[in-house]
Amino acid sequence: MARWEPNAQERLVRAALDLFAERGYENTTVAEIAERAGLTKTTFFRHFPDKREVLSAGQDTHARLLADGIAGAPAGAAPLEAVAAALDALTATFTEGQREFGPRLLAVVASNSELRERAVFKRAGLAAAMTDALRKRDVAEPAAGLAAELGVRAFHEAFCRWVEPANQRTFTELAREELDELRAAAAALGAGA
Amino acid sequence: MARWEPNAQERLVRAALDLFAERGYENTTVAEIAERAGLTKTTFFRHFPDKREVLSAGQDTHARLLADGIAGAPAGAAPLEAVAAALDALTATFTEGQREFGPRLLAVVASNSELRERAVFKRAGLAAAMTDALRKRDVAEPAAGLAAELGVRAFHEAFCRWVEPANQRTFTELAREELDELRAAAAALGAGA
Repeated sequence: MARWEPNAQERLVRAALDLFAERGYENTTVAEIAERAGLTKTTFFRHFPDKREVLSAGQDTHARLLADGIAGAPAGAAPLEAVAAALDALTATFTEGQREFGPRLLAVVASNSELRERAVFKRAGLAAAMTDALRKRDVAEPAAGLAAELGVRAFHEAFCRWVEPANQRTFTELAREELDELRAAAAALGAGA
Repeated sequence: MARWEPNAQERLVRAALDLFAERGYENTTVAEIAERAGLTKTTFFRHFPDKREVLSAGQDTHARLLADGIAGAPAGAAPLEAVAAALDALTATFTEGQREFGPRLLAVVASNSELRERAVFKRAGLAAAMTDALRKRDVAEPAAGLAAELGVRAFHEAFCRWVEPANQRTFTELAREELDELRAAAAALGAGA
């Protein structure tokens, strides 16, 4: 019987992170994650197809928000201005809960090759979503793919800085700063420096 | 008993590609690949850890050649000049055999999500190898990562063009052309265009 559980998804992510940190990713089962979260395996599988996907939660939402952010940028916006708008659009999805478990999430992913592989694939998916959205704005290749890549890099770096316990700045501020730095690096590389 | 088999690796790749194309990646076993190649399963596992890795053959060699190419570039070379030298260093590894089965390889990878995921991860590995080599030349981040990314993109695009049946140009020529186009795109993005 399907039963609605408040915050089930966040509880499952939190329980999975605790268990992965305690006993390792390989040694943790879906049943244990569900039990730790006070939920059933059925509820787990209503939210995630498998154990690995617990840590990719939000990927589809991120891809959609990034694509919508690019589509909604002003008509005359340059590619990286549209990418900046896309990163702004993500901000609303980041909760204090995510900020709190961010460092543990990054540590668990870094310690397991299967999860690192998954994270790389997630980044490629976000880049593809942004590339498609830029192509619809008539940005040609290879500029579209490159601008999307800068966006994904800015996203990742900004997320790593945002979840640092001492950080006081917003995700948007950090993402803009990272994107500006990448833009300057692209200019220098392009000029042959 | 270990027995030396001439061209075993290339025979296995060729057999795997034929079978993947005929009956699909999921429906092909290691035993069938070995049999089609006229080899044993033991020989297969001497060359590859699993079925998926058959199509990533050469990744370690590519990573090493790219890193060595960057390390060996002239002292004053700009980051993208070092990346161009790295791509030149790859040329020697590309055989006519690879060119011939290239289109089938790309088609099989494109048709299977597990193989696409593997290919994305391979590209990330090559980018990491180039980034490390650039960091050792005192190229700072984010320029090092970005220059490596341009290198991986030039590699992939040049490979796709090089294996086209009608192509008459060398891999080096195509890689330089792709890298120049990416450099121009980086300059335009960096300038806010």
